Amino acid sequence: MRTSLCDTLGIDVPIIGFTPSEHVAAAISRAGGLGVLGCVRFNDADELDKVLGWMDANTDGKPYGVDVVMPAKVPDEVKGVDPETLIPEQHREFVDRTLAQLGVPELPEGEGRDGVLGWLHSVARSHVEVALEHPIALIANALGSPPPDVIAQAHDAGVPVAALAGKAEHAVRHVDNGVDFVVAQGHEAGGHTGEIASMVLLPEIVDAVGDRAPVLAAGGIGSGRQAAAALALGASGVWTGSIWLGTREYLETMPSSEPMQQALLAATSADTVRTRIYTGKPARLLKTRWTEAWSQPDAPQPLPMPLQNLLVAPAHNRIHASSDPSVVSMPVGQIVGRMNEVRPVADVVADLCSGFSGAVQRLTGIDDG
Amino acid sequence: MRTSLCDTLGIDVPIIGFTPSEHVAAAISRAGGLGVLGCVRFNDADELDKVLGWMDANTDGKPYGVDVVMPAKVPDEVKGVDPETLIPEQHREFVDRTLAQLGVPELPEGEGRDGVLGWLHSVARSHVEVALEHPIALIANALGSPPPDVIAQAHDAGVPVAALAGKAEHAVRHVDNGVDFVVAQGHEAGGHTGEIASMVLLPEIVDAVGDRAPVLAAGGIGSGRQAAAALALGASGVWTGSIWLGTREYLETMPSSEPMQQALLAATSADTVRTRIYTGKPARLLKTRWTEAWSQPDAPQPLPMPLQNLLVAPAHNRIHASSDPSVVSMPVGQIVGRMNEVRPVADVVADLCSGFSGAVQRLTGIDDG
Repeated sequence: MRTSLCDTLGIDVPIIGFTPSEHVAAAISRAGGLGVLGCVRFNDADELDKVLGWMDANTDGKPYGVDVVMPAKVPDEVKGVDPETLIPEQHREFVDRTLAQLGVPELPEGEGRDGVLGWLHSVARSHVEVALEHPIALIANALGSPPPDVIAQAHDAGVPVAALAGKAEHAVRHVDNGVDFVVAQGHEAGGHTGEIASMVLLPEIVDAVGDRAPVLAAGGIGSGRQAAAALALGASGVWTGSIWLGTREYLETMPSSEPMQQALLAATSADTVRTRIYTGKPARLLKTRWTEAWSQPDAPQPLPMPLQNLLVAPAHNRIHASSDPSVVSMPVGQIVGRMNEVRPVADVVADLCSGFSGAVQRLTGIDDG
Repeated sequence: MRTSLCDTLGIDVPIIGFTPSEHVAAAISRAGGLGVLGCVRFNDADELDKVLGWMDANTDGKPYGVDVVMPAKVPDEVKGVDPETLIPEQHREFVDRTLAQLGVPELPEGEGRDGVLGWLHSVARSHVEVALEHPIALIANALGSPPPDVIAQAHDAGVPVAALAGKAEHAVRHVDNGVDFVVAQGHEAGGHTGEIASMVLLPEIVDAVGDRAPVLAAGGIGSGRQAAAALALGASGVWTGSIWLGTREYLETMPSSEPMQQALLAATSADTVRTRIYTGKPARLLKTRWTEAWSQPDAPQPLPMPLQNLLVAPAHNRIHASSDPSVVSMPVGQIVGRMNEVRPVADVVADLCSGFSGAVQRLTGIDDG
């Protein structure tokens, strides 16, 4: 399983794995893919710096990347307004009332009230600054093209940039902006996602960008058969995310995430929902009592980015501390239905590769008739 | 491009094409696939009988099938209630007001006020009766398992039965009910469709039914690359629908559908919407001023099947007579974005086959590294 992407990125197999866990990211890179560390959880750039130092020491010299969340348009927060003041009281009341109804306890005095600041533009920029001081092989932006100066900054350091697209016209715009890889994010994907499913979106984007940029397939990929489908549709590699949440290494970085992992292992492919409640933009999440509460008639409309995440971040901390799988707030794709046991990262990579070969052999037999 | 399905159905290539047009269905069969004629448009079983007679004379002895729409549960209509009396006046008023606002003229006195009765259980049963008097190779039901006695009736005549499924548990239930082929209908498909996209749904259904029934992939398939993806995911063949709406032969059966065809050729993959306004169950339609009107705050909730179709059928007649592409009411999948020119059926089949081979060759190169 080898495409031109392998040479471009210096990897053995065209499997890119996005994960907030450095243990998972390093294991993906060691297994021959490209581990991409999600930075949004790092409120403190120094902490990211330390973790990237750990990555440098634990990837056996194999390449890895980072993922930031940065709208191309600079939002209000950097214009001198404290975004917290823009959150309506009605929204805060709904969150408090809902958490009480769901039986999610308050946090002990003085504990972990900070939200996740990585969604803020200024913090995402600090992630890029820090990451470029490490030997990263890729900067991906989970929200389309990053601002032009960020692309230039990455290119000056010799680092290619990837951007997510949910429509062919967005993909073309990204490439026009200087983006080097397009991640075609199908409707079935976890996190921010559009309406067009991978089966249709992927060849559209491949044809629209032509040979200007390799396209990575994101959404619905958890097995070698799905990787084969993605490459049949014209992708140069696969961008995977959800499947790594079910790995053994995930809990090494985040042992307190075991209830979340259990919730994912128990879910079917019908147990996700695409909603704006996580960040203000449509994103696919695990369907739980928390997401269901937001779809009730008494729920307010979600706020725009970055306000919605500022609103729910303290709630996420309470939910996380509660260890109750039934209220988990977690982005995940429809592939969650096939995540049924905890596996080591290396096994997932090996299965993707052997499943790919099996699918190709089957197709060859069909083609030969 | 040959799977075991070809032997089972006596066809050359595992391409099943659903279409309301007998000219298209016959051309698909003549090209080596299996044309499946949609029966829902035939209010009069004698008319269906006549058209199937035409099929018998125009398929060069190649097999063809029929598609009916039949809920497994017998609805109220057969329990002695006139369904027209169950439609609220508020709904009729909304339809009349909306058509006026959209500039859709009334029909001339005495012309074409009949709705499409094929959605009625009794009419669908008459379709099955008539079809079984012809040498059909398949009865497909566009709504899951048909009632047990209908399955038995088909089997007694030596005709296999196919049923649509949008979830693995539904697929297993269909096979338990005696259904012979499962059509895995992904979210991106036109017409009745669920929430799970083909990339995830297809391998789930393939694994869930195992070797008990071949699985046909439906949703998002309009090119050979997509057919290769579907077969990589484990399908034994592809079930296609939307792409045939853009063929030259379609207008031979329905010349007055040219404005509809033009609307489809102009649409992008983002120009569809999944809504209950066509039949009462979620179905993907072309997004037009008509579908948009139903998503406005003043629009009533769609009625349950079969009432919603009885409500909108006269409106569809007016829309059709208006020849205005901007108000078309037509089920179509996200693949509509790649339907950009009118093509003969044989060319579509040939492109599916050559595109399939091209994709397999590309994959073989990737597998060999």
